[in-house]
Amino acid sequence: MALYVLKFGGTSVGSVERIQAVAQRVKRYRDQGHQVAVVVSAMSGETNRLVALAKDINEQPMTRELDVLLSTGEQVTIALLSMALMTIGVPATSMTGDQIRMMTDSTHSKARIMDIDEQAVMSVLNGGKVAVIAGFQGRDEQGNITTLGRGGSDTSAVAMAAALKADECRIYTDVDGVYTTDPRVEPNARKMDTITFEEMLELASLGAKVLQIRSVEFAGKYNVPLRVLSSFQDEGEGTLITFEEQDMEAPLVSGIAFNRDEARLSILGVPDQPNVAASVLLPIGKADIDVDMIIQNSVGDNTADFTFTVHRNDYARATEVLEQVSADLGAREVRGNDKIAKISVVGVGMKSHVGVASTMFESLGNEGINIQLISTSEIKISVVVEEKYLELAVRTLHSAFKLEQTA
Amino acid sequence: MALYVLKFGGTSVGSVERIQAVAQRVKRYRDQGHQVAVVVSAMSGETNRLVALAKDINEQPMTRELDVLLSTGEQVTIALLSMALMTIGVPATSMTGDQIRMMTDSTHSKARIMDIDEQAVMSVLNGGKVAVIAGFQGRDEQGNITTLGRGGSDTSAVAMAAALKADECRIYTDVDGVYTTDPRVEPNARKMDTITFEEMLELASLGAKVLQIRSVEFAGKYNVPLRVLSSFQDEGEGTLITFEEQDMEAPLVSGIAFNRDEARLSILGVPDQPNVAASVLLPIGKADIDVDMIIQNSVGDNTADFTFTVHRNDYARATEVLEQVSADLGAREVRGNDKIAKISVVGVGMKSHVGVASTMFESLGNEGINIQLISTSEIKISVVVEEKYLELAVRTLHSAFKLEQTA
Repeated sequence: MALYVLKFGGTSVGSVERIQAVAQRVKRYRDQGHQVAVVVSAMSGETNRLVALAKDINEQPMTRELDVLLSTGEQVTIALLSMALMTIGVPATSMTGDQIRMMTDSTHSKARIMDIDEQAVMSVLNGGKVAVIAGFQGRDEQGNITTLGRGGSDTSAVAMAAALKADECRIYTDVDGVYTTDPRVEPNARKMDTITFEEMLELASLGAKVLQIRSVEFAGKYNVPLRVLSSFQDEGEGTLITFEEQDMEAPLVSGIAFNRDEARLSILGVPDQPNVAASVLLPIGKADIDVDMIIQNSVGDNTADFTFTVHRNDYARATEVLEQVSADLGAREVRGNDKIAKISVVGVGMKSHVGVASTMFESLGNEGINIQLISTSEIKISVVVEEKYLELAVRTLHSAFKLEQTA
Repeated sequence: MALYVLKFGGTSVGSVERIQAVAQRVKRYRDQGHQVAVVVSAMSGETNRLVALAKDINEQPMTRELDVLLSTGEQVTIALLSMALMTIGVPATSMTGDQIRMMTDSTHSKARIMDIDEQAVMSVLNGGKVAVIAGFQGRDEQGNITTLGRGGSDTSAVAMAAALKADECRIYTDVDGVYTTDPRVEPNARKMDTITFEEMLELASLGAKVLQIRSVEFAGKYNVPLRVLSSFQDEGEGTLITFEEQDMEAPLVSGIAFNRDEARLSILGVPDQPNVAASVLLPIGKADIDVDMIIQNSVGDNTADFTFTVHRNDYARATEVLEQVSADLGAREVRGNDKIAKISVVGVGMKSHVGVASTMFESLGNEGINIQLISTSEIKISVVVEEKYLELAVRTLHSAFKLEQTA
């Protein structure tokens, strides 16, 4: 007997029929004698419907009330799934974020989990029932409803698995595992049986949409065995995210991630001084805009050029802030481009090998793809290119690193 | 400065535009310097949508989960109305049943209010904000979500007004007050400026759909001044429900209520014994079926005939139970009719006058309307007739008691 936390996303619970299919899947776990906590998202389309209602009232809905509104989406799903389970003879109890005491900070719409009181869930499980838990939502100390932000249900599931010391957290999704890159862009993409936590973290953060990055971080922090599987297939073991050290035979590069959600901003000719980076980035941070890649060039004439990327949705606002910064600092010019794409090669094998960067730059260069920005970490190299080259760049790199071949 | 509890039903908040209109109305109270707590229902159609989802899964949805599901309806409304208020500059905070500590018993889908901690709401009001409260929902001691049953938002509002010691509880609805009878049946029906609590209680319990009966009981118990007004008109003072003793000049009869939601069941030839009423009614009660009128005839041959009415939705189930009771008790026959209507004349003036019953029976008899059952209380007389006579009976009685004339 094992204890599983299963997570089903919006597509997997998108209709009554699909909810009933999820109930059947949960029943199979129970028939094998396992204890099961199920974490679910809102039915697909529901969150968008609710957001549209809010935006009819105010283009920028107040976040506390938006959380009250959006959290109803998951609450509907837990009630329906619990009914579906009981209807096929599986005892079940629905639980809201408040009822499982998913305590978060008070950052509405982007709350961070502080603590979970696992006792409430354990007493349901030990009572022989399935706990059907609303993902994405929590409450703060004052009892306000909070949400973890879009995709937060993955994080809820992993956090719950950590709190319950579950044997495995299984994320059911609309793909059957983690691929070397997006098969819609590169038909030769290959499903991986395992991937390391570090690689998954880079892939998630780089826009591979399989798992939400915070859920992967959580899994790493609490050593939660995490598996991605398909909701719509009965076969297949999906992809297990492992925490073992990679052996030496491991492939140099595991996957190619990409992301079209970014925009590039540059402030040129900033008078060079010790705190120039802070002077530029603090106002951006205060405007609640997340910055991704950051590059600073000091070009020798006592001025510095500073470039960074932000989410494309924040581009207009970031430009505004930066114009003000430019005026304040006496910089020469602000430039930007929101027609860019970021492409990254990821692999723990890189740690012990050289030559990945040169292979990457060379193969892109051979295709005439100009690289605008480069940033590197221990296990990934990211480049920014013009958006129109995205598909070509992904296929070029997938082939250059022979990812279509099994390791 | 006064403290008002305002309640808006599903039709009044049935669209974004209507929610915005409610926000404007609330703003007018605030502009006059009043403190305002607003209790709202689910947007019209929403509860039916959710019930339909549940019934797609199970024809008889489990009540605990149904409460989890249905309570999302009001939660959506409080979020949207709070946003609409803030958008026009009125500070507001939404509050769920859990957050206002609307404590109920654990009878899911028909929970009864045990207690309200008014402090949470008072601190919002004293902070200069409008409290936007989800009606219809509460929580039990274990933290389970409960609902008060359909129409329970009226009760939530009155209970909140009692707890807050509000100056008045104002129920905004789609009618502009309480009428002597339904104007759709009798065009001469007249709106009353005031009605006594006792009369309102009888009218509500007899199917005049203006207010939910439990809300009127609550108002009576806690002396909450209660007023019914139109959501869609700016003019008019509606109808105030008063607690004063009726003066001697008061009209004999205040209004005519009617109800087509009942069905009649009879068990004939039950061997007469001391506990026959209990033997018949206990199994009905155990099946969770509410009984309205009850009449027993002991006809002298050592058997009794027993007749009662139930909600029409319970007719099939009640018939089943009664067939079993009939077999157990050795009764002769079970009969029933679900094509009946109940019509009642209501008025505190009846207490001190005789002749109401004879006027009622005579005027119905003159129109050839046969009376099947009669039941009386201090301030009302109800009769059951064939359903096809309903409109004729209402108009006949309205005219017989001269209700079209102002008192």
